[in-house]
Amino acid sequence: MTVAPIFERMALIGIGLIGSSLAQVARERGLVKEIAISTRSADTLQRAEELGLGDSYALDAAVAVEGADLVILCAPVGANEAIAKWIAPALKKGAILTDVGSTKGSVVDQVSPHVPEGVHFIPGHPIAGTEQSGPDAGFPTLFDQRWCILTPAEDTDPEALEKLSTFWRACGSDVDTMDARHHDLVLAIVSHLPHLIAYNIVGTADDLETVTKSEVIKYSASGFRDFTRLAASDPTMWRDVCLHNKDAILEMLARFSEDLSALQRAIRWGDGQMLFDLFTRTRGIRRSIIEAGQETDAPDFGRHAKDKAGTPAE
Amino acid sequence: MTVAPIFERMALIGIGLIGSSLAQVARERGLVKEIAISTRSADTLQRAEELGLGDSYALDAAVAVEGADLVILCAPVGANEAIAKWIAPALKKGAILTDVGSTKGSVVDQVSPHVPEGVHFIPGHPIAGTEQSGPDAGFPTLFDQRWCILTPAEDTDPEALEKLSTFWRACGSDVDTMDARHHDLVLAIVSHLPHLIAYNIVGTADDLETVTKSEVIKYSASGFRDFTRLAASDPTMWRDVCLHNKDAILEMLARFSEDLSALQRAIRWGDGQMLFDLFTRTRGIRRSIIEAGQETDAPDFGRHAKDKAGTPAE
Repeated sequence: MTVAPIFERMALIGIGLIGSSLAQVARERGLVKEIAISTRSADTLQRAEELGLGDSYALDAAVAVEGADLVILCAPVGANEAIAKWIAPALKKGAILTDVGSTKGSVVDQVSPHVPEGVHFIPGHPIAGTEQSGPDAGFPTLFDQRWCILTPAEDTDPEALEKLSTFWRACGSDVDTMDARHHDLVLAIVSHLPHLIAYNIVGTADDLETVTKSEVIKYSASGFRDFTRLAASDPTMWRDVCLHNKDAILEMLARFSEDLSALQRAIRWGDGQMLFDLFTRTRGIRRSIIEAGQETDAPDFGRHAKDKAGTPAE
Repeated sequence: MTVAPIFERMALIGIGLIGSSLAQVARERGLVKEIAISTRSADTLQRAEELGLGDSYALDAAVAVEGADLVILCAPVGANEAIAKWIAPALKKGAILTDVGSTKGSVVDQVSPHVPEGVHFIPGHPIAGTEQSGPDAGFPTLFDQRWCILTPAEDTDPEALEKLSTFWRACGSDVDTMDARHHDLVLAIVSHLPHLIAYNIVGTADDLETVTKSEVIKYSASGFRDFTRLAASDPTMWRDVCLHNKDAILEMLARFSEDLSALQRAIRWGDGQMLFDLFTRTRGIRRSIIEAGQETDAPDFGRHAKDKAGTPAE
């Protein structure tokens, strides 16, 4: 699919999994005329250049944003405030400034004060990713059939919002808009809590003295394995998410722990009916996710489906 | 791969995912001469017959085990005691009696007292499965490259143990032996706790008033989705597992909750270093699991790898 360029010059500040995927899809589908890339690590910048992700490369983010009509912050959310301060004087009037961070309230708080008059700041969050990170992990179809949430303010220019939405749709995404605080609550339950739980259980298993690490690894196919993908995600990104969406995460953690205590009590007292009811209720949600096209119904994530087809098991 | 038959007559008591897969692999590879199937539900038994899984079908388990030199209990672990009592008088002298349950201590406690003199009772647990259940969910390669744990007693006949091991290896499994109590501890962390955590978080999400169910479903690709597969597992099986491995599960739940409280505290107090250290440490375990051949390293369980190859996303 090739469309007319939507933007003249796109500046990507940060070039990890998301930045790299954006560069590739924008190039492949002709969404922008020119791609400027900046990141604070010289090694990563060099790797981006070797991969041919952009047209120009600068360690100085202010140089990259010069003349850009689309600026996308693709660094971990903890870096956004410093970057905003840095690039603010160099932003072009009329430019759209957005980001891809997993938290939105903190981005609004930390970036907004630095955005110059005449620049349209519209925070964004593509709900897409893998457990891998860095410019090599990117690929152009990452955003296909995935949601991108934009959190405009009440006074956001509708034309700028529409233009940014058009860009994301051309990247393959469905676009939703919502309030930044509500975004943070939604993501706390669908993304942040699952990652924390996954990190936590892998940590618990790692600490056991009664069961060896090699036993955990050997028998991981029985459930544990499913958590290790999330627990292999980028540590810096996730540290920043925890620090920047604290209130919503603590709220969801408290509810989860309450529910877990009730479950623990049911196990201790042998309340089979409570267990059976919970285990039955949760099946429906998975069916809905499969129907919504956000998951495949191949058993075991398709691992065994492969075996069924007669190709060698991994 | 076809080998000489290892057993004359195999009786499967229970014909869900595991029983059905055993019937198919035994038939396909010629591991037994005759397959007798029994299950307490007339509908399920009829379905097994429609699928052609066995040579004979009986609602009466005692009829199925008659003359069998291999009897495998494939029902949820909560049913084992009643089945053992039922079939005991009909078991053939010299037969091997085993099971496929996810808990082993309770199976020993509940089945052993009923096993007649001269029958070799060797509890077993193939670490294989998908989130689907019933005879239609079975497939013959389910056990390929998966572990099967046997928990013989100290006085188990070595010849019988070797024969049963040969059978499982011919099904595709690697065989390990360990003490039944140790098995229960290992499985509590690699399987039972992960399932409970998954059921719990899906329940928590289902109960929220601030985030709608449709939002949870739409944005599930950001992490939540990975838990829903485990939370879609068979409710009866998992209720029984909780009730039959209570002590080990409560021990692991207590450790998990302690660790989660520490993580919660780090988030509340903004301890970025603690978060970063935990999130870094957990990456190594995933690498080891991939190296051990128990997982693929395709990003996002291969969902996006498919997109990369240019085939349509699911």
